[in-house]
Amino acid sequence: MPNEIGQETLERLIRDYRPYTKQGAVAAYIPELAYANPHALGIAAAGADGSILKAGDADTSFTLQSISKIITLMVALNDCGPERVFSKVGMEPSVDPFNSIVKLETLDHKKPLNPMINAGAIVIASLLSGGGSVDARLQHLCDTVSRITGRSSIRFNEKVYESERRTGDRNRALAYFMKSTGIIDSDVDVEKTLDLYFKACSLEVDCVDLAKIGLFFALWGKCVESQTDGTCSTKEIVTPEIAQIVTTIMITSGMYNHSGEFFLKVGLPAKSGVSGGIVAFSPNRYGFGLFGPAIDAAGNSVAGVKMLEELSRSHRLHLVSPH
Amino acid sequence: MPNEIGQETLERLIRDYRPYTKQGAVAAYIPELAYANPHALGIAAAGADGSILKAGDADTSFTLQSISKIITLMVALNDCGPERVFSKVGMEPSVDPFNSIVKLETLDHKKPLNPMINAGAIVIASLLSGGGSVDARLQHLCDTVSRITGRSSIRFNEKVYESERRTGDRNRALAYFMKSTGIIDSDVDVEKTLDLYFKACSLEVDCVDLAKIGLFFALWGKCVESQTDGTCSTKEIVTPEIAQIVTTIMITSGMYNHSGEFFLKVGLPAKSGVSGGIVAFSPNRYGFGLFGPAIDAAGNSVAGVKMLEELSRSHRLHLVSPH
Amino acid sequence: MPNEIGQETLERLIRDYRPYTKQGAVAAYIPELAYANPHALGIAAAGADGSILKAGDADTSFTLQSISKIITLMVALNDCGPERVFSKVGMEPSVDPFNSIVKLETLDHKKPLNPMINAGAIVIASLLSGGGSVDARLQHLCDTVSRITGRSSIRFNEKVYESERRTGDRNRALAYFMKSTGIIDSDVDVEKTLDLYFKACSLEVDCVDLAKIGLFFALWGKCVESQTDGTCSTKEIVTPEIAQIVTTIMITSGMYNHSGEFFLKVGLPAKSGVSGGIVAFSPNRYGFGLFGPAIDAAGNSVAGVKMLEELSRSHRLHLVSPH
Amino acid sequence: MPNEIGQETLERLIRDYRPYTKQGAVAAYIPELAYANPHALGIAAAGADGSILKAGDADTSFTLQSISKIITLMVALNDCGPERVFSKVGMEPSVDPFNSIVKLETLDHKKPLNPMINAGAIVIASLLSGGGSVDARLQHLCDTVSRITGRSSIRFNEKVYESERRTGDRNRALAYFMKSTGIIDSDVDVEKTLDLYFKACSLEVDCVDLAKIGLFFALWGKCVESQTDGTCSTKEIVTPEIAQIVTTIMITSGMYNHSGEFFLKVGLPAKSGVSGGIVAFSPNRYGFGLFGPAIDAAGNSVAGVKMLEELSRSHRLHLVSPH
Repeated sequence: MPNEIGQETLERLIRDYRPYTKQGAVAAYIPELAYANPHALGIAAAGADGSILKAGDADTSFTLQSISKIITLMVALNDCGPERVFSKVGMEPSVDPFNSIVKLETLDHKKPLNPMINAGAIVIASLLSGGGSVDARLQHLCDTVSRITGRSSIRFNEKVYESERRTGDRNRALAYFMKSTGIIDSDVDVEKTLDLYFKACSLEVDCVDLAKIGLFFALWGKCVESQTDGTCSTKEIVTPEIAQIVTTIMITSGMYNHSGEFFLKVGLPAKSGVSGGIVAFSPNRYGFGLFGPAIDAAGNSVAGVKMLEELSRSHRLHLVSPH
Repeated sequence: MPNEIGQETLERLIRDYRPYTKQGAVAAYIPELAYANPHALGIAAAGADGSILKAGDADTSFTLQSISKIITLMVALNDCGPERVFSKVGMEPSVDPFNSIVKLETLDHKKPLNPMINAGAIVIASLLSGGGSVDARLQHLCDTVSRITGRSSIRFNEKVYESERRTGDRNRALAYFMKSTGIIDSDVDVEKTLDLYFKACSLEVDCVDLAKIGLFFALWGKCVESQTDGTCSTKEIVTPEIAQIVTTIMITSGMYNHSGEFFLKVGLPAKSGVSGGIVAFSPNRYGFGLFGPAIDAAGNSVAGVKMLEELSRSHRLHLVSPH
Repeated sequence: MPNEIGQETLERLIRDYRPYTKQGAVAAYIPELAYANPHALGIAAAGADGSILKAGDADTSFTLQSISKIITLMVALNDCGPERVFSKVGMEPSVDPFNSIVKLETLDHKKPLNPMINAGAIVIASLLSGGGSVDARLQHLCDTVSRITGRSSIRFNEKVYESERRTGDRNRALAYFMKSTGIIDSDVDVEKTLDLYFKACSLEVDCVDLAKIGLFFALWGKCVESQTDGTCSTKEIVTPEIAQIVTTIMITSGMYNHSGEFFLKVGLPAKSGVSGGIVAFSPNRYGFGLFGPAIDAAGNSVAGVKMLEELSRSHRLHLVSPH
Repeated sequence: MPNEIGQETLERLIRDYRPYTKQGAVAAYIPELAYANPHALGIAAAGADGSILKAGDADTSFTLQSISKIITLMVALNDCGPERVFSKVGMEPSVDPFNSIVKLETLDHKKPLNPMINAGAIVIASLLSGGGSVDARLQHLCDTVSRITGRSSIRFNEKVYESERRTGDRNRALAYFMKSTGIIDSDVDVEKTLDLYFKACSLEVDCVDLAKIGLFFALWGKCVESQTDGTCSTKEIVTPEIAQIVTTIMITSGMYNHSGEFFLKVGLPAKSGVSGGIVAFSPNRYGFGLFGPAIDAAGNSVAGVKMLEELSRSHRLHLVSPH
């Protein structure tokens, strides 16, 4: 039986791995992200019993960026069903950078490789944006995140959104390319789809929120709600089948083009964002939220990955493990 | 001394090569182009002495499509100078399809390979669209073509333009991609640039117009103007240096990804369009305009290429030739 | 608690999924493999208690082909250590075909993406072939497989080996390419390395052997040995750490460029070969061996994959599962 | 009428452009080539009247390297005919490096793009090596070069050949890849083909030899032979048609992946080698041989290209020119 994770564990992790923040650099391609403190580092753990632990800069807000991809995938699976979703996007990991366009031209089926790379997440957003206004659709996403995190409201960061929108030409290229090949349906408004995509990327959270999102997947689509009497109960937001699909894709494709290495070394389902956030979880047990804006070439928080590696080793969390 | 080209030559070419129209198919990716008669075939030759010969469907109007790329290149060289133009676009032939995006991501310099592929022509259009309205810029192009062809007015085909614009998402992808890499300047309005590009592609000409455009390059940037007394004079529109650059690029890159084979077999500077037009010329002597909307996989008129091959052989026009 | 797998289960699987053999075709690129019966289908399951069940063509012999890649990887990890192995080969899944060479040129690090594609397995073979003769090295592999399967001897199929060697120019290209970039060390004899690779691919097994190999990984590197008194004991062949690495890589990369889809749908570590074999396992519980030489475009047995999908569903074997 | 090229011209060129040798570096990938003097620079011009001028290090010997590709192409066209040659190799320029393998996998037709890149030249060598021993075939090439240059014997540099052979794994990969796709016929011995290829690359010449080779193509396949009475006569080695094909391919593909830029700026058929040699010519008039082992990233002599640019400008040699 693995040790419980305690407050001391998290504090030691922050202490031991803060130096690794120097090995990465904050994302520069979205100007607004460049203002982040490169040495920030936070972690939170949410237990199945409703307990929350946190250390370091766990209260600092940051934007979801690519972590939003697991939320939009989940909502799309719920709203449209897996068959429609996977008629538009593949299930295979990508070794190219997250914003690469090459495979959209060279693959026969023209589908983005998976929903965790930009092209895939944009096509998912196009499925979501089918009916209603962008704001209504965004509200749907926000409500989902609110319920999972227990926050009264989730909002997008206006400055980051503006920055993404203004510098989002690479994503625009991905979207128009997919429209030209029919992957994005001909009646979809690309700019509205991108608007939803940029806003979803700009939703603001902190480590505790991420830990709760992780726990929600760890509990197969249920969130833990604290009752007035101090006890906890769980509530299903999506079916276990949908949580299972998202989890599987996090395993094979969640950490950009380092997903294989991450699964080998850490062995947990996880999703990272270029803002430095990582959500990870140990099924049935823990959700983790990490934040360290100094990222590596693949787009993953350097110190965040290191902390998860250590946590997996010390607490025997690796999914593929004799223990 | 090569034989003169006579009326009989052109008529024989149309007769002999019309069957080859069955080996191609009209372009389908721009819906409006699909209405062309696949068996149409026309040719015109313009001599340095001002003579014009024509045969077959030489009076049928069609849109310039990629042939506009030599006009916009020429105008850009004239307006901005070669140094600025070639800071944005390369000089190397492409073996990928004309609308391919792969090399924009994989080449270190990020520049489109040459100004004859879509990406290259779009960046050229972005240089032109710097000042003034799209319509003013378009008028500038039209005026140039008017002067070269001696037509009172050149107009764009509204239906084809609408069709291109509506289905132009692949070109939109190319443009936004280049904006994201800085090849298209950050202050450029992509949609306006594309508007100019689509309108330039939709300019309407016939074989005689193309033959005059060919002759204009054959005379190193001069057009032949008939005088009231029945004689001809030439007038410089661009410098010989600019005509030389465009000619050279037509040789290496004018016939899409069959340029090498075309130069080996025909040996003339030429530029084709997916509407089935080809402009070609024999320096100092002839301009040719061809039209045959049944095109091959590369985008070149099947019968048009065959006619030029025969014409080059029979009249010893190959630039690389012992004769 | 999942149901036990019984004889009836396996027989029903063979009955229900034999029709799917028509949807694939036997591998033709190695001439000798083309002689396989396309409608053959077999399955065997090995339980942690030493029990063996089998159905269909479970006794038919076939060659390991790519399944040998997990054996050579395991032996290389054991002999050279993970650090040396992963200095030569990556950990990321590949979406290109198993014999693709493109990424060897385009990736900066020049390493094959993972040890499950041909390039990766050849570089692994180059590590093994360092000392001693090819035959001595092969014997080492055979001995390992003998111990795992409890067979007195494992032999390579001479005809298949000859066929592979004679038609192995694609693999030769991969090997020489890697030698040119330094991934294969300069003192390595490429032909000897390929000889070992071809012979390892040609080792002959049946479904029961594969099931035992699967069980061996399911038990983290231990094989089950029947005692004379009818009881079973386990014996460690490699450390749990090595078994864990191989298992993880089977999850992300074991089913060629359909690994992501397979893990989503089946959720078991597995490795396939173009001869139609698949080894899969449920950690701590079962090893499976399947054989169905009618393969799909990716190289996986069509009916084999379908049977594993059903088995995973009916017996709740998916690694990522709420149950 | 262009000025004649005089001794003073060549000497001035050497003087003015020697500093450019500092901008390149000697080829390092064939170890033996790295011993060349990076500051060497020579030029020779052969006139149609049999005159020879030379300056700088025009007498230094070096190996043909890729310049041999025009010789083997010519001999193959002569021996096998254009139809057979172009069933195995394309006519399109390549923008990838000369030793790239990517397009061999990604192009549908699997043919090397043209005979001037390594893959193309190796397949040409495979056509030549069909009958007889490697040495007999090599002798055939040497005899051809002997006749063109008027040398009693042409020999290959044993050390360079050994160095190429030993480090030729990239070329081996290209050859085996093409054998696996059927571009190299199944009965061809790859190692013999490569042996011929390496030996042809290692043939030793100097600038005067190259100038005579250039003149031979400038005279459409005829070499100039000095008579005992002091006059000159020409003798046909190959037909004008074959010389025309080789010349055309030199124009589109002779200068590696800078061929487009070279033709734009210099406008002469030319072929370079990584040893620093360049052969170029002005049809009907001059052959040029240059040597400057400091090469650029594409593989072309930096100072050599610059000298040709100046020579073309000052003496109005550009093929595409109003003059």
